[in-house]
Amino acid sequence: MPATPPAPESSRLTVLAGPTAVGKGTVSADIRARYPDIWLSVSATTRQPRPGEVDGVHYLFVGPDRFADMVANSELLEWAVVHGRNSYGTPRGPVQEKLDAGVATLLEIDLQGARQVRATMPEARFVFLAPPSWEELERRLVGRGTEGPEERERRLATAKVEMAAASEFDHVIVNDDVQRAADELVSVMGLAPHPVAGR
Amino acid sequence: MPATPPAPESSRLTVLAGPTAVGKGTVSADIRARYPDIWLSVSATTRQPRPGEVDGVHYLFVGPDRFADMVANSELLEWAVVHGRNSYGTPRGPVQEKLDAGVATLLEIDLQGARQVRATMPEARFVFLAPPSWEELERRLVGRGTEGPEERERRLATAKVEMAAASEFDHVIVNDDVQRAADELVSVMGLAPHPVAGR
Repeated sequence: MPATPPAPESSRLTVLAGPTAVGKGTVSADIRARYPDIWLSVSATTRQPRPGEVDGVHYLFVGPDRFADMVANSELLEWAVVHGRNSYGTPRGPVQEKLDAGVATLLEIDLQGARQVRATMPEARFVFLAPPSWEELERRLVGRGTEGPEERERRLATAKVEMAAASEFDHVIVNDDVQRAADELVSVMGLAPHPVAGR
Repeated sequence: MPATPPAPESSRLTVLAGPTAVGKGTVSADIRARYPDIWLSVSATTRQPRPGEVDGVHYLFVGPDRFADMVANSELLEWAVVHGRNSYGTPRGPVQEKLDAGVATLLEIDLQGARQVRATMPEARFVFLAPPSWEELERRLVGRGTEGPEERERRLATAKVEMAAASEFDHVIVNDDVQRAADELVSVMGLAPHPVAGR
């Protein structure tokens, strides 16, 4: 019996995470705009939609009963209750369907979520988005200077810990330029960079 | 060559988690008081000690640089930045040392932490502490009735989701009585209940 051929790279979920304020959302948005053939995972949440948010596009807005069902039925790759208030999670079904269909799939998530995905989908590709330098991250975190010295200290301490998490990841991409970082992410996903339009 | 004998039950870490306000801390404290031969894992944290807290007993109090080193060197079974402020984590080394020495080891942790431990130590035993009833959990969560209806609704929605997480665990123990629940936990850990003193 012939050995099973290795799965194509596109059948692996790519998880993008990184420290606070590194620009994960901006890189994801750039992928969404310039690489429409890459599917971005949509989180489920129990919080109320904000103005302009579209169900199924920005989030899957679900009630707590439905969310609890998803948890009970192991339908989530990861989930969390944030600040003891609202629940957020990544539905496994849509991700698996896209992967099975050979669609390149990206999940942008926080560091704790990424570590949970490692338990439920260890074969995923874990990518850490890093700032160009510590000084640049510091600038983004405390740039406006409206916080007291204690809050500033806390943010930098947190950033230091979050930066150390890079060691948990398979790849590190430096976010020196959003489009360049997005193109590198596309390469890491096993695709040739092929933006639909420079903007 | 003879097959490797199965590891004794005491060489498996036991993880105790459950919904908010179910009484994890009380059950852990009862184990600490009545079962001194069970070792309770001590979390590392970057927050300042509170009055009465003893370094190495209640927490390992470390600076952010040391905590970042622990993250970078994969010395933590799980970790999190809580409310964007302080970092908490479970050092792997002390847990592994106790397990290797055949000491029964218990880790009390939140649900998100438990899901991370599943990635780093999948052979652990995962125990969910459940309330005797939904009504009792509701009573504990909103008992004082000082919150508005919206906050009350949020707490119950969160509890519903957290209760659904029972399906992720190997065992469910009902916390109807603290000593009884603790004794059952000791049994689940593969030990005969053997309290040092009734209190």
